[in-house]
Amino acid sequence: MRFGVNHTPSVGWFHSWLDFSAADTARDMEAIASLGADHVRIFPLWPVVQPNRTLIRQAALDDVATVVDIAGSFGLDVNVDALQGHLSSFDFVPSWLDSWHRRNMFTDPDVVASTAAYVRALAGAVADKPNLLGITIGNEVNQFAHAPHPTPHEITAEQGHAWAAAMVAAARDGLAPGRPGGSGREVRRGSAPLVTVAQYDAAWYDDAQPFGPEHAADHGDATVTHSWVFNGSAALHGALGAGSVRHGEYLLQLAAAWNRDPARPNWLQEVGAPTNVVDPVDAATFTDRTIRHVLDAQQVLGVTWWCSHDVARSLADFPELEYDLGLFTNDGRLKPAGEAFAALAREHGRRAAPAPAPVAAPSTALVLDDVLPDGTTRYGLRADCAPGGRFSAAWLALAEAAPDGRGPQVVLRSRLADDDTTAARGIVSVVEVPAELDGTALTVAHPATMP
Amino acid sequence: MRFGVNHTPSVGWFHSWLDFSAADTARDMEAIASLGADHVRIFPLWPVVQPNRTLIRQAALDDVATVVDIAGSFGLDVNVDALQGHLSSFDFVPSWLDSWHRRNMFTDPDVVASTAAYVRALAGAVADKPNLLGITIGNEVNQFAHAPHPTPHEITAEQGHAWAAAMVAAARDGLAPGRPGGSGREVRRGSAPLVTVAQYDAAWYDDAQPFGPEHAADHGDATVTHSWVFNGSAALHGALGAGSVRHGEYLLQLAAAWNRDPARPNWLQEVGAPTNVVDPVDAATFTDRTIRHVLDAQQVLGVTWWCSHDVARSLADFPELEYDLGLFTNDGRLKPAGEAFAALAREHGRRAAPAPAPVAAPSTALVLDDVLPDGTTRYGLRADCAPGGRFSAAWLALAEAAPDGRGPQVVLRSRLADDDTTAARGIVSVVEVPAELDGTALTVAHPATMP
Repeated sequence: MRFGVNHTPSVGWFHSWLDFSAADTARDMEAIASLGADHVRIFPLWPVVQPNRTLIRQAALDDVATVVDIAGSFGLDVNVDALQGHLSSFDFVPSWLDSWHRRNMFTDPDVVASTAAYVRALAGAVADKPNLLGITIGNEVNQFAHAPHPTPHEITAEQGHAWAAAMVAAARDGLAPGRPGGSGREVRRGSAPLVTVAQYDAAWYDDAQPFGPEHAADHGDATVTHSWVFNGSAALHGALGAGSVRHGEYLLQLAAAWNRDPARPNWLQEVGAPTNVVDPVDAATFTDRTIRHVLDAQQVLGVTWWCSHDVARSLADFPELEYDLGLFTNDGRLKPAGEAFAALAREHGRRAAPAPAPVAAPSTALVLDDVLPDGTTRYGLRADCAPGGRFSAAWLALAEAAPDGRGPQVVLRSRLADDDTTAARGIVSVVEVPAELDGTALTVAHPATMP
Repeated sequence: MRFGVNHTPSVGWFHSWLDFSAADTARDMEAIASLGADHVRIFPLWPVVQPNRTLIRQAALDDVATVVDIAGSFGLDVNVDALQGHLSSFDFVPSWLDSWHRRNMFTDPDVVASTAAYVRALAGAVADKPNLLGITIGNEVNQFAHAPHPTPHEITAEQGHAWAAAMVAAARDGLAPGRPGGSGREVRRGSAPLVTVAQYDAAWYDDAQPFGPEHAADHGDATVTHSWVFNGSAALHGALGAGSVRHGEYLLQLAAAWNRDPARPNWLQEVGAPTNVVDPVDAATFTDRTIRHVLDAQQVLGVTWWCSHDVARSLADFPELEYDLGLFTNDGRLKPAGEAFAALAREHGRRAAPAPAPVAAPSTALVLDDVLPDGTTRYGLRADCAPGGRFSAAWLALAEAAPDGRGPQVVLRSRLADDDTTAARGIVSVVEVPAELDGTALTVAHPATMP
C-alpha cells in the first residue's frame, strides 16, 4: 500500500507559488520523505496558472514541473491536482469566472473548454516525469456545485458526468497527446499515471449533491475518497470511537461497492485529524487506528495524509483546525501524529519488506439499497450512508463484531445479480440492514467552512 | 497641465505582475514617454500583493518599485493605485475576502485594518522615489459598494467616509511614517506625493451610490474624476457632440464645486474613447476636443488618458471596447488618437514652453441645488447632474453659448454665501438652471460591465 502526504508548503502556504522557492520545496520534501512516505500530492493555484481564460502561464507550469523533480530527488512520486479551486476554506476562482464574468463553472462551454485546456496543459507539463503518480482534476471541486457553498454553480448529475468526463479526457490527452479515448470510463493502471476525480464526502452522504458515488467510481482510473471526521462522525462516535477511526475504511468500502471493475483501485486521498473534533493528544492514536483499519481493506491504492506541515500562525483567517493538521509543525518538528504515520509507513509501505496483499477471503457483504423497485436511484440512499444513517450504523456494527476486525464489504442491491463481480470480490453471502435500524438516520450538519 | 497615460502592460495585461519583466515594462514606458507624457498611472493587482490578509509579498512591492524606477528612467512620474480591485470588467478580490470568507470590504474591522496595511506598505515601498506622483487608494473602488455590481458590499455614505479617511491616512503614513494627521481631510500638495481617492462616475451621477461628491472632494489631496462617455453622454449627444467631448471638462467643473479649498487641484485621471460609442475613425477627434476643453478649466492637475496599449486579442473575455482603448496598438504602433494626444502634450504639457496658467477670469457660475430648504442633501441632486439631467443640460447650454468657449463654473447653493471661496474662484455672478429644464432628467443605464 502506498503511503503519502498532502504537501502544504511550510513557507507561505500555497501562496508560495507566487514566490516559488526550490530550496523551501526541497526542505519540505526531504521532511516528507523522512516519514517513509512514497508520494506527495501537490496543489497549484488555478488563478495563478490561468489568470486569463486564454492565458496559461508557462512559468507556473515550469514551477509545478520543478516541484515534481525535486520530490523525485527525494524518492517521492507526485500527484498533481489541477483545479484549486478550494483549499482549507479558501476559494481560488479566476477573475474570468467570477463577479461580472461569473458563468457556470461546469456547463458554460467557454469555461469548460478553457478549464480543460488548463488541465491538459498541466498534465502535459509533467507527463514525462518518471515519478508522476497521477493527475487529479482538482481538490473537491464538487464543493462548488451545491450548498453549503455560498454561491454554488448548480448543475444536474448528468452535467456533472459530462464535466468529469471532459476533464478526465483533457488530463489523459495532456499525459499522452493524441491517445484515443476520453470516454471518461476507461480504466488504466499499472505504472502509467493515474487520472482521478476527487470529491468531498457530500458525494457519498448528501443526496442533493450533484456529484455522487458514480462520479467517483465511473471516471478516471481509481476511486478517490476524502475522510474528514468533522462531518459528524466524531460528534456521534467520539474522536477515537469506531465510527471515527473506521471512517476512512468505511469510505473505501463504499467506494468499492460502486466500482464497476472489482480490480479498480480505491484511494484514501485525504484523511486527517482535525482538532475541532480530535483532541491533539489523541491525534497520534487517531492516525494509527485510522491507517491500521485501512490496511485491511481490499484494492487500496494508498492513503495520503492531510497534511505535511502546520499552517503558519502568521497567516490569517484559516479555520482554527487548519493550523494544526500537519505531521510536522510549521517550523519542521515532527509531531506525534507524524511519528505514528511514519511507523506505519515504514512497516507497511512500499519501502517495507513485501507483504502479502490483503486476501480476498470469502466474506459477507452488507447490501446497500441504491435503487427503488422500479430501478431508479433512491433518494435517501446517501443520507442512509452518512454518519448516523441506518446503513452507516449497520456497517459499523458488523465491523465491530467481525472476528477478523475487518469492516464488511458493501454490495449494491442493483448489482446483486452480477455474479462475476461479487465472486471476484470474494463475496459469498450478503446481509441486510436490520429492520430495527429503520428511521435512525440523523442529520449532521457539515461545518460552515470545510478544509 | 500634466499629461499622462494609464499604463496597460502590452504583454500579459495586468497579469504580467505574475511574470514581471523589466524589459517589457521599459519598452512600454519608452513608448509612453515618446508621446510627450510626463506621468503614468500603474495598477498592481491586490490578490497578487496581498494573497493572505496578513501576507504582503515583498517581491511584489519590489516589482512595483522597479516599475517606478524604470518609468523614471524615461522621465516619467508615476501614480500607483493600490486596490485593484476592478480593472476593465475584471474584479480581483483576494480569497480572504470572498466566498467563504466574504465580509464587508469597507466596514469589517479586520478587513479594513489589513487593507490599510496593504495601502501603507505599498506607499512605503515607493515613498522614496523622486518621481512618485502619488498614491491612489484604488481604481474605482466605489464600484464594489453598490449596484450594478453583482455582489455589492453595501455601506452608508458615512461608512464610506470612514473607509476613505482610513485609507488616505494609511497611504500618508506609508509615505511619511509617523507624520501626524490622518484625518483624511488635510490638504497637501506641491512636490510631495499626492494621495487620492478615485471613483467611477456613479459618485457624481447616481444618488444611490454610497460614495458621492464629498468622498471625492473631502479626502486626499486632489479631486479625481473619471470620464467615460458610454455612461449615456455619447448615446444622448453623439460621440463628437458637445455633451461628449465636454464630459471631462464638465466633471472637472463639478469637482471644483465640491472642493472646500478653491486651490485644490482636480485631476481627470481617466478618460478614453470607447469604441462601443465612439467610432474608431472619430477617436482622434474625440481625443483632441476632449483635451482642448480640459485645458481651459481651472485648477486642473492634469489629464491621464486611458490607456497606453490595446489589450492583446489573445486574451479572452474583455468587453469589446477594452481591446481598442490604447494610444498604441498592442504591438506598439501609434494610433491616430495617440498622435492627437501627443500633439497636445507637446504643445501644452509640462515639457512645452511655459504657458500662462488659465486665468480665473471674472465668471458666472451655474447654481447646483445640493440641499433642501432644511439644509439636508437633496436626493435627486446627482440624477440632475447625470447625462441628460436638468443640471447637466443647463451647464452644456451655457458652455456652448460661452463666447470664450469655456464651460461655466459650478457653485453649490449651500455654499453661495461663502464669499471668500466664490471670490477666490473668480465667480462674480450666478445663474440658475432655467425652469423650462425641470423634468428633463433622463435615466440612462450604465452598461452591465464597466471598464
